[in-house]
Parts: sequence; C-alpha cells; structure tokens
Amino acid sequence: MNFHDKVQQIIAIKNSLLCVGLDSDIEKMPRALRASKNPLFDFNRAIIDATADYAAAFKVNLAFYEAHGVGGWQALHDTFSYLPSDVLKIADAKRGDIGNTAVMYARTVFDVLGADCVTVNPYMGFDSIEPFLMDETRGAFIICLTSNPGSHDFQYFSNGEQRLYERVAGMVNSWNRRKNCGLVVGATHADELAAVRRISPELPFLIPGIGAQGGDLVAAVRNGADAAGSLALFNSSRAIIYASGDDDFAQQAKEAAQATMMQLNEARFINE
Amino acid sequence: MNFHDKVQQIIAIKNSLLCVGLDSDIEKMPRALRASKNPLFDFNRAIIDATADYAAAFKVNLAFYEAHGVGGWQALHDTFSYLPSDVLKIADAKRGDIGNTAVMYARTVFDVLGADCVTVNPYMGFDSIEPFLMDETRGAFIICLTSNPGSHDFQYFSNGEQRLYERVAGMVNSWNRRKNCGLVVGATHADELAAVRRISPELPFLIPGIGAQGGDLVAAVRNGADAAGSLALFNSSRAIIYASGDDDFAQQAKEAAQATMMQLNEARFINE
Repeated sequence: MNFHDKVQQIIAIKNSLLCVGLDSDIEKMPRALRASKNPLFDFNRAIIDATADYAAAFKVNLAFYEAHGVGGWQALHDTFSYLPSDVLKIADAKRGDIGNTAVMYARTVFDVLGADCVTVNPYMGFDSIEPFLMDETRGAFIICLTSNPGSHDFQYFSNGEQRLYERVAGMVNSWNRRKNCGLVVGATHADELAAVRRISPELPFLIPGIGAQGGDLVAAVRNGADAAGSLALFNSSRAIIYASGDDDFAQQAKEAAQATMMQLNEARFINE
Repeated sequence: MNFHDKVQQIIAIKNSLLCVGLDSDIEKMPRALRASKNPLFDFNRAIIDATADYAAAFKVNLAFYEAHGVGGWQALHDTFSYLPSDVLKIADAKRGDIGNTAVMYARTVFDVLGADCVTVNPYMGFDSIEPFLMDETRGAFIICLTSNPGSHDFQYFSNGEQRLYERVAGMVNSWNRRKNCGLVVGATHADELAAVRRISPELPFLIPGIGAQGGDLVAAVRNGADAAGSLALFNSSRAIIYASGDDDFAQQAKEAAQATMMQLNEARFINE
C-alpha cells in the first residue's frame, strides 16, 4: 500500500484527524515522573496509552530527545517502538541536506526509528528530498507554510504571480510520483491553507497550530481537509500532553485528545 | 569574544581557511577499522590527529552519526570532545523549527555537544533562528545558496529585483546584532558567491563544494573571502577523509588536508 492510501485508511479506520505531538519536556512533567530513570519514555508511554484511541497519528519531535544526548536517543527509540501499529508514526525532524547526507537522514528515520514518514525542509530542493521518497510505503511531509511568526520572512516572498509557499506546493505535486508526498501547512493561516489545498488537492496535509499556537480549528478543518473531509492530520502537542502538570496528566491528556478529536469530526461532518 | 572575532582569530592563528568535514561513513572506512567497537570515533580520531595542523575548523555532519542510533550519538559526543581547542567546532545539522523546538536544538548543539556553531535552515524565518543567536560566543551559519543541483528549485526564486538567496543574505545581515551570524554559500556557484559577498561583506562564510562536489577553488576563494582574504571557511569532506580507503587513510588525509590548505592560501595571497 502506498503512503497516500495508508494515510487515508488510518483516518477512516480510526475516524480521527488528530495527531498527538510528543514534544516531551522533562521540565514540564509531573514531579514524580522526573525522578524516573527514563522520564521521557515513561511520560510518553503514559500519554500514548491514554490517547491512542483518539489519535490517527503521533508526531515525535526529535529536538526534544536529542537535547538529552545519548539517553534521549534511547528514549526516542523506545517511544517509536512502543507506538501501536494502527497509528501513523511521524518523525518530526525538519531535515534537509544534499543527497548523500539526506540518504543518511532517511536511514535514521525509516530504518533506525521505524517511522512511517518524516517532516523535511524544501529549501535545498528536490535532490535533498528524493532520498525520503524512494519507498512508496514511506512518506515525507514537506514544509510549505508554517504556523510561526517567522513564516512571513521568506515563505511569502513572491514573484508577482506566486508566493514561495505556493511554488513549494506546486513543485511537491510534481514530486509525488509514488504517492508519498505531503505538505506541512499551519492552521494559523486559514485563507492561505485553503489556497494551498486548491493547489494540491491530492496531497495529505500535516497541520500544526490548532492547540497552544491558537489557530481556528473549524476554519482549519474546512480549509485544510480534502473534498471528502479527509487527508489531513491536525497536530496538537502542548494542549494535550501538558493538559495537566500534575499526577492526573494522563487522564487530562486523554480528555483533551478525545475532545479535540470530536471537535475535528464536528468540523468535518456538521454543516452549519 | 564574539563569534565573528573568534572566527577571525582562528583563521589568523592557524593561517588556514580549511574546514575538514567529518561525514564519516563506516562503509567507506578501511576494513580493519570497521571491526572496531566504535568505528566512527576511531576513524575520526585518526583523521583529527592527522589533519588538525592544517584545519581552522572541523564540521561534523550529524546525519552520519544519527544513522547509527544510540551508538552513533555516543560517537558524536566522543568526536566533539576530542576536537582540539584551537579549531572551530561546527555542528552541521541544518536544523530549523519553531521557537520552542529551536531552543531544544540549540541546547543540543551548544550544551550537549559543545559545538561553537551550527548550520541552520532559514525557511521558517527569524524566530526559528533566534534561539541559536542568544550567546554572542556561539554562532549560526544560515543556509543561503547551496552547492547541490536542487539549489535551483527555490533559492533562485526571484521577485524581479532579488532572488531568494539574496533576500536571505540581506535578512541575515539584520539578524547579526551580536556578531554571530554567518552564511553557507556553495563554491559551485562562483558568480553568485561574489554577489552574496557584496551583500554581506562582514559575515563569515562557510563554503562547501570545493572537494568531491567539484567547485573551482581559486574562484571560490577570490569571490568568497572578505576584502582581507579572510572570514571564509572552505569545507572539504570526502576528498580528504576518503583520500585513501586503505590502511594509509590517515597519512593520505593529512597530505590532502595540507595540499588543500596550501591551495587555499595560494588563492588568497598570490596575485596572478
């Protein structure tokens, strides 16, 4: 099954567009967990157990693990190994480098970690992305328009007819020969999200920014999902995994995940 | 001492513009080393010992270590720890993500690995770069114009007056308040390199592409160094570290490093 079909199938089976982001930070965990030998993994295991029923995908943000060196990489391995088989496993790495280096990064996320897909940066062009696209069952979400303030610095750069992020979306369409390309488009730009969906009607979108970053969830679903209300994953990290900083963090994460999944489905299926 | 002055001082003391790139790949090492317990570090130690007299900087390409998981991260630590104190330690990471994630990446390269500086990707804009610029003694080389074929896909995108890589160079000038920004500009684009040097006369440049990638070394030095023939580091990875695939690899690397340093200095100091 190619990556596009895998995304479609998982969304259908789980009836969810929710992606839970494991940006796990020891400083934000309940005090009891911080004393554990492997706090990042213990925290993630509890979050995964609590939220997996409601999540179509988990996005593991490599930065939060690398910052703990060798021990962090062990937690990263353990976390990917623990993820259930019925969710999409996303390595949020934002990598991008010349071909022979990109081959190494692809080996890391797909072979070492066992991710289904990875986030990558388009700045260096096709040969920096191609190594992530060699296997039709594995995919890459290419950064297109991001949810942060700095998105305005370069992504809106325009040749008069087209902005840079629109050019990225168009180019990625042409890279999608094996049906394993997607785009990262932030929820904080609702109109632009609709425009990118028009450019790339057939690509899966990974959409951050609905949680702590404050994007409008209903607008994001209506503008970011495909014509069938599918093919988009909406990431929430902090609003779910830190719903509580106390010992009830897993229960609160579960309730936040369930509520977010429901809000996403209401936006998909209820016509106002 | 700020990062800019640190780069100037190292280049002056070592009288070298050479950066040796540790893109270390077990498959390309001499057979005897592959059997060691820690082949990546053993190889790097031999290369560092052989080439440090001729190098102003070492660039460690994180991809090649991550691809070996936890053991690779241990080799990465060991390598940064082993680098001598009189060279610039560059973490070639090409990272770029929203602020709270970039804070984690900055912690990894500066605090965990002990690098002096890091390569970063500009696509997500200033708030994705700022966490790498908080300490004036540590710097970031921001990717501007790269040496690979895919550089044409987006970096040449133009608004009619300015190409994207020129906009990046101009923006980075404005981010250089603490004198700790630099640019990555590929040697394979000699004319464009001169144009970027005109836009950013005061920024250190990290210039890949003179070795295996085939850029013209003399043109790259004349166009990429500053008015005083300094403030640029020329990276060569494969042409030095794999100068031989046999047991004489360290001796051959030493000779390749020395020859490259001399060629760079001839290009700086000899007027034709």
